[in-house]
Amino acid sequence: MEVTQKIEISDEKAAIFKEAANKFGTPVYCYFEDEIIESMNKLMEFPAPYGLTIRFAMKANPNMAILKLFDKLGAHIDAGSSYEAYRAIMGAGINASYIRLTGQLVPEENSLEDLVNLGVHFTACSLTQLELYGRLFPGTEVGIRFNIGIGSGGTKKTTTGGPDASFGIYEQGNEIDKLLAEYGLRLETIHMHIGSGSDPEKQIEADKKVMELVKYYGLVKTLNIGGGFKVARMPYEKSTDILEIGSVVSAELQRFYQETGRKIHLEIEPGTYAIANAGYIIARVNDIISTNHNCKDGHVFIKSNSGMTENTRVSLYGAQHPMSIIPMNGEIRGTKEYVVSGPCCESGDVLTVKPNNPEEIIPRKFTEARRGDLLVIGGCGAYCSSMSTANYNSYPKPAEVLVRNNGRMDLIRIQQASQKMWEDERMPGDL
Amino acid sequence: MEVTQKIEISDEKAAIFKEAANKFGTPVYCYFEDEIIESMNKLMEFPAPYGLTIRFAMKANPNMAILKLFDKLGAHIDAGSSYEAYRAIMGAGINASYIRLTGQLVPEENSLEDLVNLGVHFTACSLTQLELYGRLFPGTEVGIRFNIGIGSGGTKKTTTGGPDASFGIYEQGNEIDKLLAEYGLRLETIHMHIGSGSDPEKQIEADKKVMELVKYYGLVKTLNIGGGFKVARMPYEKSTDILEIGSVVSAELQRFYQETGRKIHLEIEPGTYAIANAGYIIARVNDIISTNHNCKDGHVFIKSNSGMTENTRVSLYGAQHPMSIIPMNGEIRGTKEYVVSGPCCESGDVLTVKPNNPEEIIPRKFTEARRGDLLVIGGCGAYCSSMSTANYNSYPKPAEVLVRNNGRMDLIRIQQASQKMWEDERMPGDL
Repeated sequence: MEVTQKIEISDEKAAIFKEAANKFGTPVYCYFEDEIIESMNKLMEFPAPYGLTIRFAMKANPNMAILKLFDKLGAHIDAGSSYEAYRAIMGAGINASYIRLTGQLVPEENSLEDLVNLGVHFTACSLTQLELYGRLFPGTEVGIRFNIGIGSGGTKKTTTGGPDASFGIYEQGNEIDKLLAEYGLRLETIHMHIGSGSDPEKQIEADKKVMELVKYYGLVKTLNIGGGFKVARMPYEKSTDILEIGSVVSAELQRFYQETGRKIHLEIEPGTYAIANAGYIIARVNDIISTNHNCKDGHVFIKSNSGMTENTRVSLYGAQHPMSIIPMNGEIRGTKEYVVSGPCCESGDVLTVKPNNPEEIIPRKFTEARRGDLLVIGGCGAYCSSMSTANYNSYPKPAEVLVRNNGRMDLIRIQQASQKMWEDERMPGDL
Repeated sequence: MEVTQKIEISDEKAAIFKEAANKFGTPVYCYFEDEIIESMNKLMEFPAPYGLTIRFAMKANPNMAILKLFDKLGAHIDAGSSYEAYRAIMGAGINASYIRLTGQLVPEENSLEDLVNLGVHFTACSLTQLELYGRLFPGTEVGIRFNIGIGSGGTKKTTTGGPDASFGIYEQGNEIDKLLAEYGLRLETIHMHIGSGSDPEKQIEADKKVMELVKYYGLVKTLNIGGGFKVARMPYEKSTDILEIGSVVSAELQRFYQETGRKIHLEIEPGTYAIANAGYIIARVNDIISTNHNCKDGHVFIKSNSGMTENTRVSLYGAQHPMSIIPMNGEIRGTKEYVVSGPCCESGDVLTVKPNNPEEIIPRKFTEARRGDLLVIGGCGAYCSSMSTANYNSYPKPAEVLVRNNGRMDLIRIQQASQKMWEDERMPGDL
């Protein structure tokens, strides 16, 4: 399979990347406001006959400027932990009532109390969570995340629904009903999230099944179908067709209205879809290493000064990211095959691996690279800065830059100072 | 395969874990001084007829107190980046002359100059690195890391030697000789590291091959054979036999002395072997989730408040860690099968997976668990705190505790304050 695995980089963009690298050093994360707006515009077309709320899944990228930008564009927030909810409120200044907390852990009692009193909406993801909420806030409205038994995705683990998933309450309707009754709770939001596969067939099946729940729980006003919409990072990949997925849900909601007279508001929680392709890592070619002198086996390696420390998705999941070389001197060169490895003394720190198999190295064709060139890595707006083995080998966290619509380059995170890596450490007196 | 996958926890240790959890919260990293000393004692038995230097691979655990403890026990430091070298010097106060920098990136010119002037020893891992060092320090001694074409380990990627590895200089003797001559450098240290497999056959092959280099480079005084010695984290695993590996190298060195009259000093660079089993993560059972109501499929899940955010090795490599439940009320209970999942909204955040296959969930037998119990995860002293997707889902970095020989519990890192997660972020004025 010979495929284009490069990003097409316009001259204008190349100039921006060079400027960011020169101004803020490398590696540096670069996000583009116009591309975020473009994604948000697409998401706003999601068909929802009785209203739509887009909640940005902040775990994808919790930088305060990013959160505030989504806020400004009309998105609300999906928080995955009470820490995230606090971060959105205290760090980014998001109005608490725009946040829905749907988390894996039972929050500490006092923090749940605090957050809900501030206005945060709560989705109970387990019976324990529901019980705690009921005890603290009897007689109020609540959301419940159901595991409706359907998951979408390639492997057991990338599925977040079904019996292999611990996300949401699975087939325990009696217990739910008992708790709702005991604490006089009104179930107003039903939440489901079937995973990151976005398989339309599965989505249809899930939508039909969840509508039975919506029907059963007569007070439900909002259906939250989670996120996990795929985006094509690589040219040969296919993004989820938002309109297709949406028209399925939408048809169900319309049918339901005709049948029951109830208009159900829709919520979606995109992370990747909202920002993945709006983000780039600008790295530098630090060295070229060859094990290919006899031209029979071995490789030529690009040593990038960014790898698993800024984007762990490749090592974790064999994720594919498009990459391109920008020659520093602007010259036109031929192409050559390279393996790209990161800066860590870790054999798993490689950026060119087989899809879904991070253990197998796959060289890619690039513009011929020299030490000092820029290496641009695309698809890095989501789950890179937020989910990476930062500080491994004691590399500091890079700066983050938001390239504004007016062309201004806003520094939205400064590069971590080295001593911050150890400032929380303490030395016992006798060592 | 029915195997014991629990840690045997003495009553004394259980009491320590409970105390640490109560005092410092959960999750918390707990390291035991006596177990570190035990590992160091074993390492000091490594046969080396003409002297031995043990360099602790600080990327495994760079906490300043840990570095200082190894320093106190007589170990020197293996730094994998210039940042690590600075951290050891400025953070932990390690004497610069005890540090050898063997890194994947060409350091910045001024930081290399600075570090070497402070006394840090330098191993050139590429021709570019050698050239830079030569330019800065002509007429001095230097080390070179060779990729001698042999790797040990299960997959292409866990190998750090051979044509699929970018670590060290591969078959470019002529270029090396030219640079050594051009800058009048004395090659006094030869470095090789064949990977984390510790296959004795491969080690023999590598030792024989590297001795040809030692012979060819007549000024070499020190042979550094790297680290990567395996330790059994699980009861069914086998640790590298240090004496076996060592006796192979040792025999080569003795033969070489008889042949040439040159006494070669040996260096080893253990990370995992030195500290992995001396470290534990003390987590708390936050919730119990069931998808197993019909007792046919599904699982019972322990939701741990620690997962990939403190130990990413499981998700990255399908690494196996022993775990045990400590019932909070001290009662004796039966056993039950559980899948352990972490606190993140991430389907990959599971701690019980198939060896080398993090995509497949494998339940394990535990003491029956209840919310509030402790979950102790063993084998977490190396590459956990240092190489983890910390702060994902905005969970703060946990505290670290060193349990001293005298029983004292020294807090060696405080829990990260939430606002530290966003203190380097900046909000553009118009957002």
